[in-house]
Amino acid sequence: MSTRNSRSELEKTAVQLFRKLGTRTVLFHQAAAQALGLFPTDLKSADILNEAGPMTAGELGKKTGLSTGSVTALVDRLEKAGYVAREKDPNDRRRVVIVPLTASKKHIKDLFRPLSESTMDLCREYTEEELELIFSFVGKAADIMEEELERLKQ
Amino acid sequence: MSTRNSRSELEKTAVQLFRKLGTRTVLFHQAAAQALGLFPTDLKSADILNEAGPMTAGELGKKTGLSTGSVTALVDRLEKAGYVAREKDPNDRRRVVIVPLTASKKHIKDLFRPLSESTMDLCREYTEEELELIFSFVGKAADIMEEELERLKQ
Repeated sequence: MSTRNSRSELEKTAVQLFRKLGTRTVLFHQAAAQALGLFPTDLKSADILNEAGPMTAGELGKKTGLSTGSVTALVDRLEKAGYVAREKDPNDRRRVVIVPLTASKKHIKDLFRPLSESTMDLCREYTEEELELIFSFVGKAADIMEEELERLKQ
Repeated sequence: MSTRNSRSELEKTAVQLFRKLGTRTVLFHQAAAQALGLFPTDLKSADILNEAGPMTAGELGKKTGLSTGSVTALVDRLEKAGYVAREKDPNDRRRVVIVPLTASKKHIKDLFRPLSESTMDLCREYTEEELELIFSFVGKAADIMEEELERLKQ
């Protein structure tokens, strides 16, 4: 096999592999959300709130790419599930912020723990130099995904 | 920094990195589905049908981890959008199979093309040996996701 063929094969493999990973990621989040009685976007939004802290519905909409109506329905579901609370911003009483609640953090952490542990076990099969190379690639792949997300939202 | 610390830092980085990639993947699929007027699970199911070919609702439920009721609603939405058709199995007229339609293939391909092209551009920054190492890791990460999905469905 010539180098050109082997490279083009490798590039096709990359696309198939990330597609496979993408499909499984979406299905995993769907199943995880279902296990918590939520929609997949709800779970990701709860995750974003846990990471970034309280924010307004408008800010959450921007971060998720969801419409105002969808964000309202989403916050209603999360509030009903006891994952977030709508509170008045102490610095500006006219602003309502969505505050992540501790229950949400624990449930989500428990759900993802086996995945985190398996990922760490996998890392132990590689040297530090290998991991640095792999993470540089995966980090860039995550950036590409972010750029594509921005493009889709336009 | 001692080797132990640096390794444990790297393992934490891995978890954060895959979490970031996971969040962006879920949000990307959400936005892509929205652009096509579908739910994220719908898009993934159309993708699965395009890859694997016609199957029964029961088989699609097994592959996606969705309940019978959810699959029925999903196939209704995909049929309305012109992405699939319900047809009698030519080998067994009592069986109804869900058949992916060509329109779905083209729309989904167009939506994902820039992502595929950027991924292939990224690959060109690495040597073949580096890519083989990276893909072995990503492939195993995809397998972990599959195992975790199976666990969640139980």
